[in-house]
Amino acid sequence: MDLTQHIRTVPNWPKQGIMFRDITSLLENPDAFAHCMNLFVSKLNGKKLDKIVGIDSRGFIFGAALAQRLHLPFVLVRKKGKLPGETISEEYALEYGTDSVEMHRNSISYGDKVVVVDDLIATGGTCLAACKLVEKLGGEIIHCGFVIDLPDLGGSKKIAEYNPFFLVEFEGE
Amino acid sequence: MDLTQHIRTVPNWPKQGIMFRDITSLLENPDAFAHCMNLFVSKLNGKKLDKIVGIDSRGFIFGAALAQRLHLPFVLVRKKGKLPGETISEEYALEYGTDSVEMHRNSISYGDKVVVVDDLIATGGTCLAACKLVEKLGGEIIHCGFVIDLPDLGGSKKIAEYNPFFLVEFEGE
Repeated sequence: MDLTQHIRTVPNWPKQGIMFRDITSLLENPDAFAHCMNLFVSKLNGKKLDKIVGIDSRGFIFGAALAQRLHLPFVLVRKKGKLPGETISEEYALEYGTDSVEMHRNSISYGDKVVVVDDLIATGGTCLAACKLVEKLGGEIIHCGFVIDLPDLGGSKKIAEYNPFFLVEFEGE
Repeated sequence: MDLTQHIRTVPNWPKQGIMFRDITSLLENPDAFAHCMNLFVSKLNGKKLDKIVGIDSRGFIFGAALAQRLHLPFVLVRKKGKLPGETISEEYALEYGTDSVEMHRNSISYGDKVVVVDDLIATGGTCLAACKLVEKLGGEIIHCGFVIDLPDLGGSKKIAEYNPFFLVEFEGE
């Protein structure tokens, strides 16, 4: 199955000149969603893993399904102010200014082997911040897994040390 | 398994007097998360269903896992401005003012039998708005499913016509 056929492109969204890759069309096809999850599982086959981390909010979709498939704990990385317990936070750069993501301090234990999941990697700022949160708590990133890579935006190179993998690429962003 | 034991209560969050029921502790226990999904599946056993709808953003976690378990299309209801295609929207009341949720217009077809999923029902405003979106597009709500009901806040009564079910209740909110 060619997953790119199931990812709709919406031109000029959220602004002029952006070709937005829309995973909602993939999610609405259960064969395509299942194929996606099978590919994630096969990429991680045989690896010793302790936890799956999903990034707010489309990373929750793929992360939760993966965590259940692998019967592993599912940990949330959320935008600031969304987690009720004691958190640690990490800033990342936006086009103008900064934002931050948070994780519960007790969600990762020293030595945990972790996979970080999101739907798409563009400039990589959010994923890099999520990886740093895991490391601050003593976890080890085994892989970062994405459905989509936009290689021209450089994010996958920025997180090369965390063994990123992708199911599809769209060039010419 | 008693799921209430796996849902942490954080007192006085997000503000004084609120007992926040935190599903992150449940998600971090793969047996509890799996039990939760088994209960969702058993509540829907034998029903003819066409689509699962998940509500932004914790509804994505349970909705996506359920859609994959049942091999059904997974449709997103998102906060406004997050969906790239042609959308319809529905307002709901907040404590002060209103907000709205959106769905892609092409996500539901006339006659679709739909289950709407979220983590928790409190006052029910968001869920009611999600149900109205489905109905506007000609879909039929078979059930609304939640991990947690806070019955004292009245949401489950507000959506009684949509056959709500819950896995656990916390009273005295």
